[in-house]
Amino acid sequence: MSLQVDAARLTHELQVLATFSAAPAPAVTRVVFTEPDRAARAYVRSLCTAAGLSLREDAVGNLFARWAGEDPSLPAVCTGSHIDAIPNAGMYDGTVGVLGALEAIRALQATGLRPRRSIELLMFTSEEPTRFGIGCLGSRLLSGLTDAGAASRLRDRDGATLDDARQAAGFTGTVADVALPPGQYTAFVELHIEQGPLLEQRGIGLGLVTAIAAPASLRVTIDGEGGHAGAVLMPARRDAFLAGAEIALAVEAAARSTDAIDTVATTGVCHVFPGAVNSVPSRCELEVDVRDIDEGRRDAVLARVETACVDVAARRRVSVTTQVVNADPPARCDAAVVDALTASCVDAGFACEPMISRAYHDALFMSRVAPTGMLFIPCRAGVSHRPDEYAAPEDIARGVHVLALALARLAS
Amino acid sequence: MSLQVDAARLTHELQVLATFSAAPAPAVTRVVFTEPDRAARAYVRSLCTAAGLSLREDAVGNLFARWAGEDPSLPAVCTGSHIDAIPNAGMYDGTVGVLGALEAIRALQATGLRPRRSIELLMFTSEEPTRFGIGCLGSRLLSGLTDAGAASRLRDRDGATLDDARQAAGFTGTVADVALPPGQYTAFVELHIEQGPLLEQRGIGLGLVTAIAAPASLRVTIDGEGGHAGAVLMPARRDAFLAGAEIALAVEAAARSTDAIDTVATTGVCHVFPGAVNSVPSRCELEVDVRDIDEGRRDAVLARVETACVDVAARRRVSVTTQVVNADPPARCDAAVVDALTASCVDAGFACEPMISRAYHDALFMSRVAPTGMLFIPCRAGVSHRPDEYAAPEDIARGVHVLALALARLAS
Repeated sequence: MSLQVDAARLTHELQVLATFSAAPAPAVTRVVFTEPDRAARAYVRSLCTAAGLSLREDAVGNLFARWAGEDPSLPAVCTGSHIDAIPNAGMYDGTVGVLGALEAIRALQATGLRPRRSIELLMFTSEEPTRFGIGCLGSRLLSGLTDAGAASRLRDRDGATLDDARQAAGFTGTVADVALPPGQYTAFVELHIEQGPLLEQRGIGLGLVTAIAAPASLRVTIDGEGGHAGAVLMPARRDAFLAGAEIALAVEAAARSTDAIDTVATTGVCHVFPGAVNSVPSRCELEVDVRDIDEGRRDAVLARVETACVDVAARRRVSVTTQVVNADPPARCDAAVVDALTASCVDAGFACEPMISRAYHDALFMSRVAPTGMLFIPCRAGVSHRPDEYAAPEDIARGVHVLALALARLAS
Repeated sequence: MSLQVDAARLTHELQVLATFSAAPAPAVTRVVFTEPDRAARAYVRSLCTAAGLSLREDAVGNLFARWAGEDPSLPAVCTGSHIDAIPNAGMYDGTVGVLGALEAIRALQATGLRPRRSIELLMFTSEEPTRFGIGCLGSRLLSGLTDAGAASRLRDRDGATLDDARQAAGFTGTVADVALPPGQYTAFVELHIEQGPLLEQRGIGLGLVTAIAAPASLRVTIDGEGGHAGAVLMPARRDAFLAGAEIALAVEAAARSTDAIDTVATTGVCHVFPGAVNSVPSRCELEVDVRDIDEGRRDAVLARVETACVDVAARRRVSVTTQVVNADPPARCDAAVVDALTASCVDAGFACEPMISRAYHDALFMSRVAPTGMLFIPCRAGVSHRPDEYAAPEDIARGVHVLALALARLAS
């Protein structure tokens, strides 16, 4: 197959997509259902329509753009990723797997191929947990792992429910209908930047993911006692922020205690109330993220954090409550999908190597309902979730080329 | 003198004043030059005008309400406090010294007294540091301790300058003219809730302040390196929030290290960037408050905090910068003013005792330009800077009674 990936067109489209942002360039902030997210969705829809794909959106805004195959009754081959972005992020996380998949479909169309199975681009809602506190909301609901009842209880920091937010963005269907029927897809493949440094360090252009690390997140709420910073003497204090500081350090210590390089834990959010220089903090809210490729080891870290919370609560005479927002098992990629990706690399003459995904992705949840694989491309210095996140056009084009070959192979 | 304090009227006025708030009752949030602050100022002006006082406002919004004496050419007796309130505060801090002083003046007027010296109610701008990061802004400028040049460099978190903010609130004069001329006042007395538990614990209705603790505040900015919470491995991290957590705990340890009950230190503000659960914090901003009645001991705590910052920066490979926002000496109250307050307590038949003010007040700065005293009344459980801050009407009335007698004595 003589496949031509238009790297210049794809680079241009990624740059246009990056302009839909609540933060000034080069930063990208695109939180689900906010105005930049809605505008970016409209842009992607317009590109898909121009490519002749037929569009469908579900009740939470997952977008399905289908290139019908010769036999549309067969389970389709699916590919996709997300376009939402955490505050102050970059322009490649997720977007490469959406616009790159579209470019792969266009490149296949240009060869004159008519695939036997349909090929469907899936753009997932809210891969990032920024707004509702839980990552991969769209793919969780598609997989059935999160049900409509749980989704209906989600609220953002301002108290808006998921239903409020999705309906305001124009998605008015029934959330219970989002879950995919069994056997919908014969395969799912996600193209993504590595978000780590290994491919760049080894000079390898493509990574074939064999497993995705198991993520978990906790919300920790500490209630102490406020008061005047001059008048409340040190022995009488029940300072919620100092308790939070100790818990954040305990999270770090718990991750390091496993002595496994694959264990990571982060306290990325800390809100202090009332938040005045001359007022003893009465309340502190933390959000904690723990990941490991080994689920048991990950759960042991969570247990250590819980123990630390109990210890800090007793010692500092504060109340500490923890809520597990999610604690998901790791995923193994499907051997047949990995084989199709490997064969496509061989066909194209590109070097590749197997690897672990430390970040988690919609593929983690799609693996519950479809044979799944992931294809990684390098990103500069492994940097992600930052404005200086960067993937070279030639690396993106190489990933798109292999994705296209694999989609054709899986759809044949 | 047969003095009648109208406790019911004063309670009503305090309650009305509390309604000017950005937070729902019982919380009071009234940040300088915001709409609630401007509305509250208008209310106080209307009450002063109704009492026949002549009004003047300076370039930063300090309000002077004068009851002219028989000899207006003599230095006046001054009394007052502030009405601004930190986020989620209560309704008595400061306000008791403004509306209580007005009630004292009205009670004196009702006796038919015509004082020899004028008596002036002074309502200070921005005693709280919430908006511009520095406490007692109005009284600092009146005392000359902070000059117009330093004031012109102040900015709030949104980047607005003091000049922008005061002019938007209608205060358009020249800041250099705010400093009081020498000998303006023969005495300054501030009535205030204790903001500590001692009077209540000892069953004493009135405290006569002999000294005010020395306050200092620091801003600490930590720059580390952000990244994806799944992909950046623990040994490679330069997490700004964990550095901030260690510094906050070092602040507490530094205060406790003096073994003096009078040393207190607080980290009341912590902002974490970018503030997403799945992003390693790249930046953390802390605001730290340190106080002691012993200035040398206070400075030793500041030095320990600075040392901890250097240590944390090296160990965690982050950049830590500290900025001393203020570091003021303690104040001794004036013996003659304290004597006048003591004699007034004796005249009225009220028990009182000398005490230290651990919180700082506009009186700290007024003591640089006038013989100064402070009169404390109990507040429930020592609670302040919280919505449940409470002072009983009879305790407030007792303070107003003694304040009125002392003003009359000092103005004679």
